Amino acid sequence: MKDSTPSILNELIDSLKCLPGVGPKSAQRMAYHLLQRDQKGARRLAFSLNMALDGLKQCKRCNNYSDTEVCELCLDADRDATKLCVVEMPADLNRMEQAKCHSGLYYVLQGKISPLDGIGPDDIQIDRLLTRAKDGIVEEVILATNYTAEGEATAYYISEMLKRSSILVTRISRGMPVGGELEYVDTGTLAQSVYERKTL
Amino acid sequence: MKDSTPSILNELIDSLKCLPGVGPKSAQRMAYHLLQRDQKGARRLAFSLNMALDGLKQCKRCNNYSDTEVCELCLDADRDATKLCVVEMPADLNRMEQAKCHSGLYYVLQGKISPLDGIGPDDIQIDRLLTRAKDGIVEEVILATNYTAEGEATAYYISEMLKRSSILVTRISRGMPVGGELEYVDTGTLAQSVYERKTL
Ligand SMILES: [Zn+2]
Ligand SMILES: [Zn+2]
Repeated sequence: MKDSTPSILNELIDSLKCLPGVGPKSAQRMAYHLLQRDQKGARRLAFSLNMALDGLKQCKRCNNYSDTEVCELCLDADRDATKLCVVEMPADLNRMEQAKCHSGLYYVLQGKISPLDGIGPDDIQIDRLLTRAKDGIVEEVILATNYTAEGEATAYYISEMLKRSSILVTRISRGMPVGGELEYVDTGTLAQSVYERKTL
Repeated sequence: MKDSTPSILNELIDSLKCLPGVGPKSAQRMAYHLLQRDQKGARRLAFSLNMALDGLKQCKRCNNYSDTEVCELCLDADRDATKLCVVEMPADLNRMEQAKCHSGLYYVLQGKISPLDGIGPDDIQIDRLLTRAKDGIVEEVILATNYTAEGEATAYYISEMLKRSSILVTRISRGMPVGGELEYVDTGTLAQSVYERKTL
């Protein structure tokens, strides 16, 4: 049997494999589904991808994805501005909000310190976080980076940098599974680890 | 908790739900994965979607997706041109090829007769198929439309139209599960139903 799939279609099937959890078989099924039954949806998806890649800003205060210069969450007067929670990625912030365990504000690092990959504090602009933490309003910095080697190194570095300040630095408790990532942990475990956060 | 997801991101999450088997949760996971970890893949996916929607031609002989005017399969001299297999959609042709149970050529209807939806023989240009079948080369038309009400109606209509010709009209056997669709059946069952095809 010769493969008679046209190259444009093969390219689409291949591209769909960049989605997490999508292997060759479901990529093929998705491609045929889009072309045969939902061309409108396919066009919309292409458009949204480009819109998100081009148009999605980062909030000037917290670094989270935002439509506007400063995001809604940062502008929300009901949030407790004395508590600043530091996470690695936007998906982590999202997960924290789902767990409903933090009423303060956030700072998204958009990365982590990773000596093995040559990523140091300057590469993820940790000085910007330190300036923010020392604005006179923040009283507690809650380190909610992942419990991976990199997340731990990042938390350690930040706590060292804030050691001589009057700011309380806490770390979410190791209620999280070892090696676990916030994005995939169940919300109950995550909430527990926030309530049990400990002073560093 | 206010939803602080920016609208561009929400729109992307929503668009991803057009993919088969993707619910709200995995759509969200996919969106964050693309934005945080695979922007290159996301851009490529958007491009391939548009390429496929704009650039994918249909073969002039069999109606299958093709990069060229006439597809490779139709041009393949090793295929038995006396046997013409009729399927509803390109994914069905693909499935037939995977089952390795048909050495002849194909005709893809790109649809089916569906009285309830007001889709009649003219809407899917069945006359084009009849002209093709009567080209003097085709000796057998194998009806491999689905065993759904519409697939059955389509097969019945085509067999009626070819009744007075000298062409043998066969139907893949009901080895397929009732209500089953070619795209999702296991290849063994599908192959069996081709071997057991019966004269109509
Ligand atoms: Zn913000
Ligand atoms: Zn063809």
